[in-house]
Amino acid sequence: MSLSDVSLPSRVADEGESVGFDELGLAARNHGMPLELMHHDVTPLGAHYLLTHYDIPFADAGTWRVEIDGLVDTPLSVSLDELRARRVVTRTVTMECAGNGRARLLPRPVSQPWLHEAVGTMTWTGTPLAPLLEEAGLSDDVVDLVFTGADHGVERGVEQDYARSLRVPEAMREDVLLVWGCNGVDLPPQHGFPLRLLVPGWYGMASVKWLRRVEAVDTPFDGYQMRAYALRQRPEDEGEALTRIAPRALVIPPGFPDFMSRRRVLRPGRHLLQGRAWSGWAEVTAVEVTVDGGASWSPAGLGSTGGRWAWRGWTLPWEVTEPGSYVVSARATDATGRTQPAEQPWNRGGFANTSSQLVDVTVLSA
Amino acid sequence: MSLSDVSLPSRVADEGESVGFDELGLAARNHGMPLELMHHDVTPLGAHYLLTHYDIPFADAGTWRVEIDGLVDTPLSVSLDELRARRVVTRTVTMECAGNGRARLLPRPVSQPWLHEAVGTMTWTGTPLAPLLEEAGLSDDVVDLVFTGADHGVERGVEQDYARSLRVPEAMREDVLLVWGCNGVDLPPQHGFPLRLLVPGWYGMASVKWLRRVEAVDTPFDGYQMRAYALRQRPEDEGEALTRIAPRALVIPPGFPDFMSRRRVLRPGRHLLQGRAWSGWAEVTAVEVTVDGGASWSPAGLGSTGGRWAWRGWTLPWEVTEPGSYVVSARATDATGRTQPAEQPWNRGGFANTSSQLVDVTVLSA
Repeated sequence: MSLSDVSLPSRVADEGESVGFDELGLAARNHGMPLELMHHDVTPLGAHYLLTHYDIPFADAGTWRVEIDGLVDTPLSVSLDELRARRVVTRTVTMECAGNGRARLLPRPVSQPWLHEAVGTMTWTGTPLAPLLEEAGLSDDVVDLVFTGADHGVERGVEQDYARSLRVPEAMREDVLLVWGCNGVDLPPQHGFPLRLLVPGWYGMASVKWLRRVEAVDTPFDGYQMRAYALRQRPEDEGEALTRIAPRALVIPPGFPDFMSRRRVLRPGRHLLQGRAWSGWAEVTAVEVTVDGGASWSPAGLGSTGGRWAWRGWTLPWEVTEPGSYVVSARATDATGRTQPAEQPWNRGGFANTSSQLVDVTVLSA
Repeated sequence: MSLSDVSLPSRVADEGESVGFDELGLAARNHGMPLELMHHDVTPLGAHYLLTHYDIPFADAGTWRVEIDGLVDTPLSVSLDELRARRVVTRTVTMECAGNGRARLLPRPVSQPWLHEAVGTMTWTGTPLAPLLEEAGLSDDVVDLVFTGADHGVERGVEQDYARSLRVPEAMREDVLLVWGCNGVDLPPQHGFPLRLLVPGWYGMASVKWLRRVEAVDTPFDGYQMRAYALRQRPEDEGEALTRIAPRALVIPPGFPDFMSRRRVLRPGRHLLQGRAWSGWAEVTAVEVTVDGGASWSPAGLGSTGGRWAWRGWTLPWEVTEPGSYVVSARATDATGRTQPAEQPWNRGGFANTSSQLVDVTVLSA
């Protein structure tokens, strides 16, 4: 028996193929953020989206160390206590899974079947990475920093510890942190206890959990997760590694839900549509909202943010008198002009797909 | 438009019908406990299973009150501060969803599609309910206490606040609590902030979240959730309301996983199989383990528990030299003699089903 017997290549679903037990198994252990929790500026602990590739390690904070080595003048081995004694920074950051929205794509990439909930905003506490790299002293020829976690598994036939890299200028950004806390407490095990990387503005795959090692290397890192988290049309394409989060707006589903369908029910009257919007490229500058499935759009009012890397609230009053079916949706535009295109380019991993969430609403007869 | 247009009757899946987007929508927002977290005696905050029927309310603890009324001498209206000033009790309790294991049933009840992860153990802090009921003074003819939460929705055509009841002797048990904390912090919103009921030993449906009202009534409560959480073969059956948790053992999946299939990979050698077992009826007295899909069973060693209502750890050394495929499973028996039957009686809601978890393991060539 070998790994190739148990771990198959990636694939897309056949035409008409429904969600399988493998996808359901991932959906049952990973989870999105219930969208009504966007009423909270900061996502309550435990409700932030969660995607674990392998198993959540059982870690001992007392003996945990992160090694900073490779092409450095002075390799470092740093304990949690030593990190906590450094400059402490707390920052509110919105994080999204690169595969958010994957489950509705046609054809559907077979992986964690996210609808639109793979997002969350927490207030993270840690220490900047850059001063540690400066203390270690990167050699002039260093190209990438490779971040490796303690989570071990096999994926598409490749046995690995989860690892992903950043180019030197990105790793040296002052807002890239090694974090040990979120929302005022120690990281929960499932979010990387005792230590993770935090790369604000990037999809979650970059914020390596259970961080054990930061290695400086002189060639672009080509590890499994660099190739897996990439935009490509065909398996044999070289692919473009994912980086920053594309702009997206989500609606807090209005009214109350039907248990099974999650369809929303409203009574006629004045309602306030609300939601959040974010982009890893630049500040969100506009949110537009439709209640007729995209036939017409209205500009929403924008609230303040909890900082550059936190989502932004938006609101739009909605007076609805006519009973019937409505489809509510929102789209965001950021300061670079990036927006959520009506026609989404498909890619084989189902990544960076910002197709609008479509919220089915039934307005009852009065 | 009326509620019956948006909220359909319950149903079971057709033969060969795969998991639908409605079931996936529930799986994306609700979540089970990643099974490797059974290494922890107490489930880390945020990793305990979660099942919310409607939306998670946005609650203000400062103004929250629970009303204790109906057939009582002195109706009470109690604030959180008043509850916290009473006798404080902390208790470790294992809770399981009544629908755990539903997704593998044939035919499959269409609802939240749990595999085996809908369980968790937290250390809950609150105050006993019985003294409050005594202060209110139940009339002699009281039969049921009806517990109503703030979560509002429509389910199978019935608009409702979530409500479930207990008979008087059950509600007066000294270990039934009104709880405001878990694992040392305030309840997170998704687990009932700021106040929930806790009924140790019963399936989670009894531990009403976002508790607003406790009403004493003189006829058996026949609300929607009493009829929904019931064992029946056909929709028209009267049904038997669910109460206590049937015994179950789960295995911590050994080795490491394949990302997509969650199949486990081991190298030949000595391993320690581990897991947890629980029953709401009585103490777990035996756990048996099979590595050959049920052809033979071995008794596991039992660990201590964190109290009467907490799960119990179990271990079994496993030396495996032969590469190949194995199916690992465990079954629990409690002091009443209840166990996990090989042949599970089916019911239409997929409740109290304790079919053994089957863990597929591949032992690699050395």
